[in-house]
Amino acid sequence: MNRRNFFRNATLSTAGAMLLNPIETLGFNFEDRKLNSKAAKNIIMLVSDGMSTGTLNMADMYLSRKTGIGSNWLQLYRDNKVSRALMDMASASSIVTDSAAASSSWGGGVRIPNGSINVSTNGEEHMPLWQKFMAAGKKAGCVTTVPITHATPAGFCVNQKSRNDQERIAEKYVDLKLDVLLGGGSKYFDANTRKDKRNMFEVYEQQGYYVAQNREKLLGAPSDKRLLGVFAENGLPYAKDRYSSSQLTNSTPSIAEMIAVAITNLKGSAEGFVLMVEGGKVDWAAHANDITALIYDQVAFDEAVKEAIDFAEEDGETLVIITTDHGNANPGVIYGAKANEHFDGIQKFTQTNEWILNGVDKNTTINQLKERIQYANGVGLSDADVSHLLSYYKEDIPQESGLYNPKKLPFRVLAEIQKGYTSVGWISMNHSADYVELAMYGPGSELVPPFVKNTDLHYLMLTAAEVENKF
Amino acid sequence: MNRRNFFRNATLSTAGAMLLNPIETLGFNFEDRKLNSKAAKNIIMLVSDGMSTGTLNMADMYLSRKTGIGSNWLQLYRDNKVSRALMDMASASSIVTDSAAASSSWGGGVRIPNGSINVSTNGEEHMPLWQKFMAAGKKAGCVTTVPITHATPAGFCVNQKSRNDQERIAEKYVDLKLDVLLGGGSKYFDANTRKDKRNMFEVYEQQGYYVAQNREKLLGAPSDKRLLGVFAENGLPYAKDRYSSSQLTNSTPSIAEMIAVAITNLKGSAEGFVLMVEGGKVDWAAHANDITALIYDQVAFDEAVKEAIDFAEEDGETLVIITTDHGNANPGVIYGAKANEHFDGIQKFTQTNEWILNGVDKNTTINQLKERIQYANGVGLSDADVSHLLSYYKEDIPQESGLYNPKKLPFRVLAEIQKGYTSVGWISMNHSADYVELAMYGPGSELVPPFVKNTDLHYLMLTAAEVENKF
Repeated sequence: MNRRNFFRNATLSTAGAMLLNPIETLGFNFEDRKLNSKAAKNIIMLVSDGMSTGTLNMADMYLSRKTGIGSNWLQLYRDNKVSRALMDMASASSIVTDSAAASSSWGGGVRIPNGSINVSTNGEEHMPLWQKFMAAGKKAGCVTTVPITHATPAGFCVNQKSRNDQERIAEKYVDLKLDVLLGGGSKYFDANTRKDKRNMFEVYEQQGYYVAQNREKLLGAPSDKRLLGVFAENGLPYAKDRYSSSQLTNSTPSIAEMIAVAITNLKGSAEGFVLMVEGGKVDWAAHANDITALIYDQVAFDEAVKEAIDFAEEDGETLVIITTDHGNANPGVIYGAKANEHFDGIQKFTQTNEWILNGVDKNTTINQLKERIQYANGVGLSDADVSHLLSYYKEDIPQESGLYNPKKLPFRVLAEIQKGYTSVGWISMNHSADYVELAMYGPGSELVPPFVKNTDLHYLMLTAAEVENKF
Repeated sequence: MNRRNFFRNATLSTAGAMLLNPIETLGFNFEDRKLNSKAAKNIIMLVSDGMSTGTLNMADMYLSRKTGIGSNWLQLYRDNKVSRALMDMASASSIVTDSAAASSSWGGGVRIPNGSINVSTNGEEHMPLWQKFMAAGKKAGCVTTVPITHATPAGFCVNQKSRNDQERIAEKYVDLKLDVLLGGGSKYFDANTRKDKRNMFEVYEQQGYYVAQNREKLLGAPSDKRLLGVFAENGLPYAKDRYSSSQLTNSTPSIAEMIAVAITNLKGSAEGFVLMVEGGKVDWAAHANDITALIYDQVAFDEAVKEAIDFAEEDGETLVIITTDHGNANPGVIYGAKANEHFDGIQKFTQTNEWILNGVDKNTTINQLKERIQYANGVGLSDADVSHLLSYYKEDIPQESGLYNPKKLPFRVLAEIQKGYTSVGWISMNHSADYVELAMYGPGSELVPPFVKNTDLHYLMLTAAEVENKF
């Protein structure tokens, strides 16, 4: 088989939808790109959702300054072990993508409008990549720290007009017989919270799945059964809040623990496996301008990177892809006489802003909130700043909004105050249009040129695994 | 000669200053890095000063959406013609560098504190790279859009305890007999504005330099004489304001015109040449959160990239390095229903915020300022917003500050208003700690690993040119 034809076939099959010259759709001259290693039997794709380049950098600086060793992600660069690219993540509707269109660009190989999962505006459905790999005999799984039915895992697995139909996505997963599904989102599985009152946990068990709803059950999972693990009603706790609570540490797994269990389950597959691992709450932290949540969840994601690379180094047949789906809030450390001291102060933070603000109500006193922030950040705020924060808990004050802020808590105001003692700034509480960082390790990584379109990754993964795109 | 020894020698010679294991100072295993092409006879290093990754991305998106073709910089990626790296630009005093310490890290090969030019805290001076190359027989030059005595060009050429001693730097340049010096900053050369009342233009002429103080004189420069061109009292006009004024277009050169003249002057050198080209006002635009200035100056810088690459492609013996010295303000396009429309609106902007705000005084009326912004941005502002801007011109209102804002004009307020119709946000009005983008084309480019420290570049350039580091 001519390896170069994977790209060609893939491109031609989707050219109608893209209305572009088939060669141009790939954004580079793929005739020059040859798979000069063996095929990738396995693919692990790690996505730190909503990770601006500044987030990647700050996590590395945080670790370097605290431990003397940077992040596992950038250590791969320092050791010259990866191929890198900039990736253009625009969707069909906007230069600033959402996670649904972003994941679909990889999953379906076609740009679609924001909000949909592998369904174009005209209703055309694009076969998700994990379905293609399953048809080729591979096992397939997804791991995330947000609901397992959320946009990013869904984009690899299903077609759904609206990303919000998460109850329906939970049904589709079991119909597809996906091998490993680990994350949050029990409200989309639980009979008490689903509109149709179906108990999806029972449905999965009836279909032969091992179902885990806490960390202990997960760590005791057998490796010869399909696996569903759901560890929170919505998203999992932020890594820092989990770490600071022995109850949460015992009851919910870390992302590194989840990927380890997933790999153990999948690695016995004779035809190999594909696994998507999402640090989903990195995005939620950026939406909240929550520096503690952001850095520690990025560091937790980085521990999952190590699990993947350790496996791939030993295995020798695994392509590891590490990236993000879009920037979010473009955070960075700002110049100033105290920049080092301020940034290093984050090392001592014990709780996220999510924890701080969720523990406050209209009856909280100025001193109580001061003590709470002193405990979480080691910093004593002024009465004026604390009063300002408390004013958002009174009913006659306009409150903040935001995608992941259902209680309308003053995340923006707290971040603005923290800027004075962290030196970290934000451009907004939403996604950015920046091209994103992409790194690849292992067989097939030589295929990636220095600049790619998001949709290129779909075909690159098929080519790397030598799975012909005939679907 | 063993090519690998360049790195080794270079490292050992500076190990004392860095107090690190000589191998660790390079941040990568240089034993694996071999010069597997011929030596670079020439080096052109292009620095878009203060260019956050978002600035690089926005300029590419602006060009892609306007013309169908992206930036020359990223076209090199699309064509798979370059090696890329992330570069850690920290200084000896801070994770957030200033331009003086940044340029010195490349120029002297040692991290020094912010504010100095190739002088460590203990007074130790580090020989600047352009002096080393001149000692090896090469011609050397600098081109910039800010004063030619400013931190970035100075860091390649001289030692100076304070970057502010620009009058002294103008004297040192002529003593060094640098071959090409083009930029702004006549106030550091002019007898009327120098403290010592020396006419440095005359001094340069006495030393055999051809001196140009306008575009016409520059374009008529001979190629067999040393060249000093100074085209503004301070920085050159922003590219967009220059383009919108036939007077400025005729009187001051573009950065692309300056690099073309510089290459013509230098390319006849038998032993080759080194040339630094700085888009210095990209940094000033970011300090002002001035989106029009930022994007169009980045695009103007990108035209200089094309000049360099066109020469290098024909020449075949030229290493081209394209990078920035630090992030600034981390701008990005923010998610929203009108993100595309807003971002595309910038295509029609005719003047920078610098132009808008400098044309206002305390007597300007609301309607006059409205018309001025309508002319510059094609947008009609509300009376409230315009009144707010005008309030900053009254003496009893606290005014804005900033490094390049001597008149304390309301750049921040205008940027905040513009965010509503450009969808572009900023984290601050200052530098950020982000690792920066680095790309290399031509002989020696294979030496760069995916992650480097700023100081590595000093030794990489010597290695690429096969100039032994014995100084």
